[in-house]
Amino acid sequence: MDIKQYLEARRKQVDAALDLFLPEAKGVLAEHIKAMRYSLFAGGKRVRPILCLAAAEAVQDYDNEFPHVLLLTACALECIHTYSLIHDDLPAMDDDHLRRGKPTNHMVFGEAGAILAGDSLLTYAFELLSREGLETSATERLRIISLISKAVGPEGMVGGQFLDLTHEGKEVGYDMLREIHSRKTGALITASVQAGGVLGKCTAEQLHALTRYGTQIGLAFQIVDDLLNVEGTQEQLGKAAGSDAARNKATYPALFGLDKTRKKAQEAVDEALAALEGFDERATMLRKLAQYIVTRKR
Amino acid sequence: MDIKQYLEARRKQVDAALDLFLPEAKGVLAEHIKAMRYSLFAGGKRVRPILCLAAAEAVQDYDNEFPHVLLLTACALECIHTYSLIHDDLPAMDDDHLRRGKPTNHMVFGEAGAILAGDSLLTYAFELLSREGLETSATERLRIISLISKAVGPEGMVGGQFLDLTHEGKEVGYDMLREIHSRKTGALITASVQAGGVLGKCTAEQLHALTRYGTQIGLAFQIVDDLLNVEGTQEQLGKAAGSDAARNKATYPALFGLDKTRKKAQEAVDEALAALEGFDERATMLRKLAQYIVTRKR
Repeated sequence: MDIKQYLEARRKQVDAALDLFLPEAKGVLAEHIKAMRYSLFAGGKRVRPILCLAAAEAVQDYDNEFPHVLLLTACALECIHTYSLIHDDLPAMDDDHLRRGKPTNHMVFGEAGAILAGDSLLTYAFELLSREGLETSATERLRIISLISKAVGPEGMVGGQFLDLTHEGKEVGYDMLREIHSRKTGALITASVQAGGVLGKCTAEQLHALTRYGTQIGLAFQIVDDLLNVEGTQEQLGKAAGSDAARNKATYPALFGLDKTRKKAQEAVDEALAALEGFDERATMLRKLAQYIVTRKR
Repeated sequence: MDIKQYLEARRKQVDAALDLFLPEAKGVLAEHIKAMRYSLFAGGKRVRPILCLAAAEAVQDYDNEFPHVLLLTACALECIHTYSLIHDDLPAMDDDHLRRGKPTNHMVFGEAGAILAGDSLLTYAFELLSREGLETSATERLRIISLISKAVGPEGMVGGQFLDLTHEGKEVGYDMLREIHSRKTGALITASVQAGGVLGKCTAEQLHALTRYGTQIGLAFQIVDDLLNVEGTQEQLGKAAGSDAARNKATYPALFGLDKTRKKAQEAVDEALAALEGFDERATMLRKLAQYIVTRKR
């Protein structure tokens, strides 16, 4: 299977699972569930859930049939990612009107509706992660809740968004740029890889390697995001191109120029691949995913 | 110990634990942590953490020394409650400027700062609930995360706030009023009592009784909130009195008048007490708490 086929197959599995775990609702909450689903099914690439599945596959044989708990965890990661996008887009934050080519959540459901949709997606993720009656040990599942909540809390993703906002329009050095990126994007990507590893019953050594891999592809992912914001067209991005520069945001291209930025992205991918040296051929897709991240166009 | 002394003693324990689990921070995230702590230490009565502790005490002997996991859980409940207040107060929601006599979070830290403080408090709650290395079984802790996340997610607290907002200014019948209350306020109060019971190693029968108790005091709590909004002064409430009527909000006094509303509050308390009939004298404070809820002045 080449990486495009793999991504497409996994994306379909994740989409089906999301639709199963958060179905349309009737009754008084229908509109609220609709707001949650609007952003959840707005064309996301499912990078985090796929990384979670691929990390599990890198240490365990599944043959395309994933246990329920792994799909639940993958979906929880996408719920958290989606909540973060909804809140980041709010008028009080980045005030974005378009996301993946569609009106942002608050443009459709209003500001209050969007805040609540985000709040519910975040909370629902923990509902999924703690759902009872699954085959995996409670200890493992508690561990996953712990690592994911740390990755997206005050010291992680929310802290990163806080730093991003408070440094807008300010002179930002490389250290702060890395700190913002590692918290805002890197932490959840790393946690996605770790969660997959843990559910695939990886060894402590493998978990260490997966953490290194996750950190590096998280970095590569953000660098490429910065690049796409400069180089991409609005059509490719589904949002306004050049918006970072317009906002005077700290980015890799702004600090290093395009050539050196591209080189840095490839370096991060190379380091990610080096981290997987001890893994066998089951890690093939995880390796290909790393390379895919720097070549993607959106 | 009378109920006032009990509440004061437990409040102090909860405050100390909150300060321990979310200390002031230095460094780049200092201002973000400050925003979280601002609302966390803005004079809350700690009703939910105290209910959690009292429920545990109703089934287990502690002698004022609570295990770490019980304090963590109590603090997580307060973090979630505080996040809900911060988001409810936002300009896009209730647009409140005062809370407990102090400027609301967004008046001090700005809208973006307040949204993020709420997001972090919610996430941090799950970080506390999943913290590793504690004495309690992982199965029990997973169960608590499950019941709390359900209580505050789309079907619970956030759903209740959604219904509250979407029914503002509309004709609301008794059924919808109950539905809004049970989701918005009742669910987390019930979960607080349940979590305490589970950590106190209650029997299935006791958990059932505690759930009944929690449901009824949750109801009583909200009815009294409605009453205080009509009868209280701004000084007592720490926020604008009569704000519900001004907003044309559905409330018990608006539907039933003051006398019948007071009677309904007492009926709920009586039902809560009836639920505890099978409990011994260790449930004394839980019983007194129920009565306290209808006599409180703020």
